Parts: sequence; C-alpha cells; structure tokens
Amino acid sequence: MRYSKLFGKTVREAPSDASMDSYKLLYQAGFIRESTAGRFFFLPLGIKMQQNIMKVVKEEMYKAGAQELVSPVLHPLELWKETNRTNTAGFELMRVKDRRDAEFALGGTAEEMFVDVVRKFQISYKEMPFNIYQFSTKFRDELRARGGLLRVREFIMKDAYSFDVNEEEFKKEYKNMGDTYSRIFKRLGLDTVVVESDGGYIGGDYCHEYVVDSPIGETNYLTTEDGSYNAHEEVATFDPEVINSNDEMLPLQTVDAVRGTSMNAGVKFHNMPLTHQIKDVLFVDEKGRFILAVLRGDFDANELKLKHAVKAITLRHATAEEIVSALHSVPGFISPVKIHDLAEKNVNLVVVVDPSLKTVKNAYGGANELNKDLLNVNYGRDFVADIEADIALAKEGHVKNGKKLTMKKGIEVGNIFQLGYHYTKLMKGAVFTDKDGIEKPYYMGCYGIGIGRTMATIVEQYHDERGMTLPENVAPYKVHLIAIGKDEAPFEKADQLIKLLEDKGIEVLFDDRTDVSPGAKFADADLIGCPYRLVISPKTGDNIELKKRTEKETKLVSMEELLKIFIL
Amino acid sequence: MRYSKLFGKTVREAPSDASMDSYKLLYQAGFIRESTAGRFFFLPLGIKMQQNIMKVVKEEMYKAGAQELVSPVLHPLELWKETNRTNTAGFELMRVKDRRDAEFALGGTAEEMFVDVVRKFQISYKEMPFNIYQFSTKFRDELRARGGLLRVREFIMKDAYSFDVNEEEFKKEYKNMGDTYSRIFKRLGLDTVVVESDGGYIGGDYCHEYVVDSPIGETNYLTTEDGSYNAHEEVATFDPEVINSNDEMLPLQTVDAVRGTSMNAGVKFHNMPLTHQIKDVLFVDEKGRFILAVLRGDFDANELKLKHAVKAITLRHATAEEIVSALHSVPGFISPVKIHDLAEKNVNLVVVVDPSLKTVKNAYGGANELNKDLLNVNYGRDFVADIEADIALAKEGHVKNGKKLTMKKGIEVGNIFQLGYHYTKLMKGAVFTDKDGIEKPYYMGCYGIGIGRTMATIVEQYHDERGMTLPENVAPYKVHLIAIGKDEAPFEKADQLIKLLEDKGIEVLFDDRTDVSPGAKFADADLIGCPYRLVISPKTGDNIELKKRTEKETKLVSMEELLKIFIL
Repeated sequence: MRYSKLFGKTVREAPSDASMDSYKLLYQAGFIRESTAGRFFFLPLGIKMQQNIMKVVKEEMYKAGAQELVSPVLHPLELWKETNRTNTAGFELMRVKDRRDAEFALGGTAEEMFVDVVRKFQISYKEMPFNIYQFSTKFRDELRARGGLLRVREFIMKDAYSFDVNEEEFKKEYKNMGDTYSRIFKRLGLDTVVVESDGGYIGGDYCHEYVVDSPIGETNYLTTEDGSYNAHEEVATFDPEVINSNDEMLPLQTVDAVRGTSMNAGVKFHNMPLTHQIKDVLFVDEKGRFILAVLRGDFDANELKLKHAVKAITLRHATAEEIVSALHSVPGFISPVKIHDLAEKNVNLVVVVDPSLKTVKNAYGGANELNKDLLNVNYGRDFVADIEADIALAKEGHVKNGKKLTMKKGIEVGNIFQLGYHYTKLMKGAVFTDKDGIEKPYYMGCYGIGIGRTMATIVEQYHDERGMTLPENVAPYKVHLIAIGKDEAPFEKADQLIKLLEDKGIEVLFDDRTDVSPGAKFADADLIGCPYRLVISPKTGDNIELKKRTEKETKLVSMEELLKIFIL
Repeated sequence: MRYSKLFGKTVREAPSDASMDSYKLLYQAGFIRESTAGRFFFLPLGIKMQQNIMKVVKEEMYKAGAQELVSPVLHPLELWKETNRTNTAGFELMRVKDRRDAEFALGGTAEEMFVDVVRKFQISYKEMPFNIYQFSTKFRDELRARGGLLRVREFIMKDAYSFDVNEEEFKKEYKNMGDTYSRIFKRLGLDTVVVESDGGYIGGDYCHEYVVDSPIGETNYLTTEDGSYNAHEEVATFDPEVINSNDEMLPLQTVDAVRGTSMNAGVKFHNMPLTHQIKDVLFVDEKGRFILAVLRGDFDANELKLKHAVKAITLRHATAEEIVSALHSVPGFISPVKIHDLAEKNVNLVVVVDPSLKTVKNAYGGANELNKDLLNVNYGRDFVADIEADIALAKEGHVKNGKKLTMKKGIEVGNIFQLGYHYTKLMKGAVFTDKDGIEKPYYMGCYGIGIGRTMATIVEQYHDERGMTLPENVAPYKVHLIAIGKDEAPFEKADQLIKLLEDKGIEVLFDDRTDVSPGAKFADADLIGCPYRLVISPKTGDNIELKKRTEKETKLVSMEELLKIFIL
C-alpha cells in the first residue's frame, strides 16, 4: 500500500474527549473514526488490524472444533419473549419494527437465535457435542459510550454457543474453550488473568472473565499475591477470621442504648469491637418481599450475592417507614432476634444470614426497639436463618485460602460461562434425541470475545510516547518502508523490494511521499507502529536500514539478509 | 470437517414455498435456514461458500486499488436528511431510535456514511483518486421476500464508492471497476451481460448492471442478437422506423368522430394505421404539475424516462375529472394541439413529445372535444413540445442500430454507476483541495455486489437433478471424501489422506458416518456439490476412487497422483 494514496492518514490532534491512550493513538494513526458516540468506522489500517485479530480467533476456534456460521442482525422479538429477555435485558436492548409491524431486537448476544437455528434440525446424541459461533455486529444501547473502542454501542463480537448432552460433557467443552481462549490471547500478545465472575442464571463454578490488567479497566477483581485465586469483586469470597467462636455463650440481655444509628455509634456506646456487632440491612425485592441481610459488623452486604441467594431480580433498600410499619422495628435498631414474630402477618420476610456470624459469640446489636440493644446474641441460639448464604462483600485485605487479597483493575476481553438448561428449557423444541430414544434439552455454554475491545486493549498494552508498538500478529502491515531522497533511485529500489516481499506474502506499507520531510515520515511510522521499519535513502547504498519499532538501534542489511529475517 | 459432527446436515424435504432451485438446494444441502421471511442464517457450509465469494471479490478489489474499511451498521438519520433520502428511500428504509431518542437508519446503501467519513479528513488532489469499500449488512424493508437468497430483507453487500477530482478522472475509475467486475464474475463462474440501466440521479452513460441470464431473474433487458446492445427495459432506446416523414403536410382538419376512447377505436373509425395516430397520456406529478406525454400511436410511454425528462419523483395517471376541469379537454380525445390555450390559467402543464412523432406526417388524433378528431396533424406545425425527449418504451421486435431487439430475463448480481456531485453537493464539507488551492466537491461513483444473491445465482447456474455442481472457487470444500466399509481400515486410510491434503492447504469434508448406506452418502455428496468426490472402500485397495461432480466416470488413482491433480 502506497501511503500517498492511503485513505485515513495520520493526524496530529486527537479528539478532545479521548482520555485513553488507545483511542488517542488509533485516532491519530488513522485506524478509526467515530460516526456518532460509540459507533466507529474502521478505516483501512484499522480494519486490517481487526481482521488480523479475527483470523487468530478463527484459527483457534477451528482447532477447538467449533464451527462458524452467522445469524441475521435483526432478531425476531418473539424469540426474546420466549426467554423473557425483553424484560431482563432492559434499556440496553434496541428494538425496531418493519413496515409489516414485525418487531425485532438489535441483539447484544444471540442465545435465542442460536437455539432457534439448532431446533430447526433433528439432532441425535451421535452428532454431539457441537460448538457453533459467529462474528457479528452486536448492539448495546449504553447510556455512556466513551473511551474509543473500550465501551461502545456497536461492535463485532465473536460469540460461541456449545450444545452438550449433559453437564459432565459441558465441563469438557468448558475446559476446551478456556484453553482456547488462553491460546488466543497469548497469540495476540495479551497476558490475561482468568477471573471468576458472576454466573448470572445459574451460578456455580463455570463462569470466568479473561481480564488484562490495566489501570483504565472497568473490571475490579480480587487476587491473592500468588495468583492462585482471582475473582470479580461481585463474586469474590473470603475466609472471615475466627473471632471468639470457642467462647461460652452468655445469657441474652436487653440493655438501654441511647445511641446513634450508625455502626460506629454502637461500637462507641458499648465499647466493643465492630466484629462483635451484628449488621442488619433490610431490602425489598421486585415482588415486594422483605429481605433482611444479617452479617458480622465489619462486613458489608454484596447485593449481587444476596440477589442470587434469594433469587431476586432487583433489590432496593427498605425505607424507614417500611421498617416501622412492616417489621414493627426501628431504623438503626433492627435485629434478627424474634423479627418474624414482630413483623406484620402479611409481610413476606426472608432472613438471610452470612456464615461469618458463626465466627463470633456473644455479639451485640439492636433489639427492634428504640434505644434498646441486645447483648450476648448468638446465631443458632437466639435467631436462625431462613437462608444461610455467603452474602459478604470481599475487600482488599481480606484473606482467602490463607493469603491476603488485593484489588486489581483490568479490561475484560473475553468471557466463558455455562448457560445450562436456562434457554433450552424456556424455548420449546430445543431438544436432541438421546441414546435411550428420549428427547432431552441441550446443556449449553457460551463464550464471547469483543473484537474491538481486544484491539483497544492491545494498543493500551503496546505503545510508547511516540505511538503504537504493535505485535506482528496484529499489526496492519508487518513492514513500514520509507524512501528518502531527491532523485528517483530510492523510490525505484523500494518498488523492487516491495515486489520481492509481497511475492513472499509480506504486505508492506510504503511511504512514497515526496513532499514530506524524513522526520515526519519517521514520526508517522512510529505512530502507526508496524513492527519493522525499513529505510531506503541515498545513504543506505546497496543495503536497507532496518529498525524494529521496539528497539532503538538501526542496522544496515542486504536484501538477502532481510528476506531471511522476515521469512524465518 | 467430519460430516458426523457437522452442524447443518442435509435433509430430504424442502420448504413448501421454495419455488427456486437455488433456495431448495441450499436448504436441502444445509447451507442456509430462514430466520424470518427474507432473513437467513448461513450455516457452516453456507458461510464457507459466502466467504469464498467474498475472498474473490476482495482480491480483485485489491488489484483494482480499492481500500477496504467498514462503517457502523446504524447510520445517523441526520446524514440521510442532508441528502433528502429519508423521503426518497421511502418504505424500504427501516429506522430505529436509541434510548436518548437519537434516530438511525438501517441502510440499504451507504453513500452518506462514506461521504461523511471522507469529509472528516482534509484531502488534497495528490491523494486522489481513491476508492473505498466495505462488506456490510444491508437492509431493505421489502414488502415481499421470497426465493431464498434472491430477494431478501437483510444481506451482505460489497459496496464501493470512488472519489475523483472530476468527471474525466471518474470515467477511468468507472472503466477500472467495470473490468474488475468482469474479472470477479468470471472467477465465480458466472457469465454476465453488462446492461445499461437507470442512472437515477444523473442519467448519462455511466450506469450498468451485471446480469446473469436466467429464466427466474427479475431483470428484463433488451438485447440485439449480436449482443452489441444490452439495456434494461426501463432505459432501453430504439430507432423508430420512418413511416412517411417525406410526405407533404396537408391542411389540419377537424372531423366528427363518434368513436370509442381506445386507440383501436380510432384505428377502426378512421381506417388508418396505429402508427399514424397520436397517443396522449396525461400524468400528474408529486408537485401537482400536469405532464402530457405525446407519442406515436404504436408506442407506449416509459414512465421512468418521462420522470427523468421532467425531473419528477412520482407520477400518477390524471383522472377523467382532472382532464376535464384542469385541461378543459375530454378523456379519449386529448390533443397537444392548442392544449396550452385550453388549460386553466393556473394549471402548470408540461407537454413532452417523443421524437418518434418526427417519423410520421399527417397524423390523426383527438381534438380536445367529445367525438371530434383532428386529421393531418403535424408535429412542429400544429403543436410544439415544452420538452422533446425519448419517452418511448422499447419492446421486443423494435430495432436498435439496425438490429432487432429481443427481451431477456436475468438476475442482477452487481451494478456500477456514477453519482457525480449528487451527494457531495448536498453534504456540506465534502470537498478536496485541488491543485489551484480551491476546495471542490468530489465526483463520485458507486459499485455494488450482492454477495448472497451472487451465491444463489451460482447455484441457479450450477446444479443438476441431483444437487449442486459448484465451481472450485466457491465450493465450501474442494474435496468430499467418503469412507465405506465395516472395518476400520478405510476410515484410518481416510484420516491419513486428510492429513496429507490439509497439509497442502486443501480442506476436506469427510463423510465418516458408519450408520448410513453408501448410497445415502453418495446422494449427500451430489447434493452438496463439492467438485471432487473421493471414495475409500475395501474395494479401492491402495488407491482412491476419484470422481468429478460434473462427470460420470470414476477412476482409481494413487495418493501421489491425487496430490498432483489437486496441487497443479
């Protein structure tokens, strides 16, 4: 490609709202342009980089036995109604009607579409397992779209869906896909951390994000120093240290407690540590149920864990009035002790107790009465759980498997997770014929990679103050060739070299401009970031100057030497 | 690919509404499935065929110097408003709003998007010409979508847009693209006819469709026997034979004519040929203008030509009442003679005369009065045109350049046409800096290929009663390998052969099923239509049975011979 004719040349300025390096550099180097917020043109250099990424993904998916296909962009809304996702996908789902009033979703993922195409076939256990995937445009009606390719409204996603006869078989495919993802990101030059994340529909052990550590990432995860445990802050667990669980239980006692309603006020008033206090947080779910989360005083409730524990879709904090009228308790003085007896008869109240309360004996806390506290409260003796579940928010400094947790930031570039029977039980006819002749629903998994986000992440990881430093596997061109000089000789020699290289399958970006200074050409080469820079000038004689983008020194090599370097 | 694990296997039945061979075969062979009417899944075999087609297109576009990029799927509606296409694209344009009420078009083409990205750059004449293109999903809200991939609502189109400094330079690119299209379709195995077609915005000589002759095509074009002239019926011209243009003009005469209002009634009443009659057809355009089309009696008006002649967007026939009240004429007795004098003063009337009226002297026709006709009417003497323009519909049997025209049917697989300044003058800032330092609008052309339609057309051209007979360039697999036998030997040998072939870059579809008869396997191979069928069975010994899909005879070859056949 002759740079003089390239559409999408470098520019010096960056968009005023481009705070992230990847957006700045991809803009300045002429890889992308924004159409409207969060929707991008991929220019000739950018689309080549994107296609190089897709090629790696495709090759590894092929090795893993997955089969490519493609679904329409517009998903019939009836399919989304079958799985109730028109409600749960919420605002981010765009819809469109055609002239015959048929309604469609502009999907963010394609579970329904893939289940729908699969159920058009009569499939037997002999043809299974299978894993089918596509590269296709996905839509997310994000409220905010900033940061170039990192948070967008329209993007190419590789989304794969596996269909297995049962959970055991699914686990094998899950491992297969996990290994595949590790290979993909390694080939793309990205170090990924495999982070446990929210299982959504099912929970369980089969949900992981592939995260690249980065200070600009939006994923926060907790990790042990040795990296043996990595989990998204939403799902991370930890081992609460034992406080005094071997102490003898003392008699429950009600005392006057003219104190404030904060946890700290309790600590001060009783002069006892926060760990011995009982924390009670009251929520109301979308069905009007009251959910009382009970934890050790030094822990906070993790609302996502709590939602999963009680199978709620949304939670909100109860109002002071609700605490009084529904529970007949008092804000700041709620207690799980006898709370079911106090609550209005028609109130549906679920008490969820975090197991951390087993680590403390003779705790203290409210008494469901203004300015009264209970002392020597013991879980199991004085109150019980409707549901006992881990609902505590893990934080930096907590301990997991004997090791301290620290919080890290990263960019999620991929995820893999089990869908189980969620879709195949909601969608009629999503069944295969098993060995025994009986029709059974598929056990599914799903596996996504955001291609544009991966592209931006590579740039975040591979750049310096002068521009991008792209790995060979993804750079739009392996070679950036520059001719310098007043006469035609260097340009003619460049043309010969290009022919040689292109015959060997090596694509060349050739800066053939005659009205630009050598310095400007070098700056553009550094900005665009192809791995090898070649210079032909009156000074290079019969040789060619070679410089790696990531190194400082240049060296003169002959054409033969050059070919050897590139071909091997 | 092992057929046993392939997703999307062959089936015997076809959809009841599949009247076209291509739809039937692509369905039965497991290449495509309909999601909703006109929106298709491309299954693993189908997407490979589609990608093979795209590869050919991409290679030829590269050779032609075009640069690939890609635009967002959702086009900001403001861009379409800039060019007024929100009105002219009409019903076929789908629109969607996001949660912030921003409105988008689901585009059928992307002129505005490409002009918009180009005007984001400051481009000088030195960087020109350039031709940029994309493969992207296009949407057409068709009222009817039938016929598999031939008329759909969602499809991949390769759309290219050229930007030139002026018309002269554009003409070179137009030829370049024309040659490129010929090469593309040739490589895809399609014989295309280059057919003049409607220039839309501009008219002129630069608008052609690439048409594959087919009885199921929806494109009707007129052609001379020697193929020197090919034109879409909408735009075809012809040479009206001279009737009596050398006759002396006789005095105009008004006569009683108690006749019916049909052309035939006139012929019968006056006992004079249809060629001597004057045909008058009155239309009303979208602005309320009255357009009187005047032709020789044996010709029909071509409404598209008429629209272009008067620059109207829509035309409808005038009502009988309008003929009376606006023109003060009489249905069946309209005449161009003195019609401007008769018409209401506030009526905007445009008389358009077809040059065919120069071929006849002393014609006859209505007199703008009931049961009165004029005889010896002569164009130029008795009436004149506001606009003289070719508005006659060419038909089979007409003569062009001395050769008879016949009508043919075909499928349009591609088109190329000039856009000129149409978009760049409507869209602000779509300018380059010319040699003289002055900013000038780009002169544009545009070039489209429907990938799915091309795929269907290939199947229409390449099939027999047993299935598809796909050319090597497009078949999903070059080789369909079948192993037959009760023991494992043929299957093991097949695995060895696959390894050999795949090492050479030849992909193999391997029918490894053990629960299917040889006959069923052969039938599936014929249906899928890969160019080479290989069989390994207990009978083939150390050799392999080779059969071309398009030939009847089989032959036994050694592995070495086979490799030679495939590699050369």
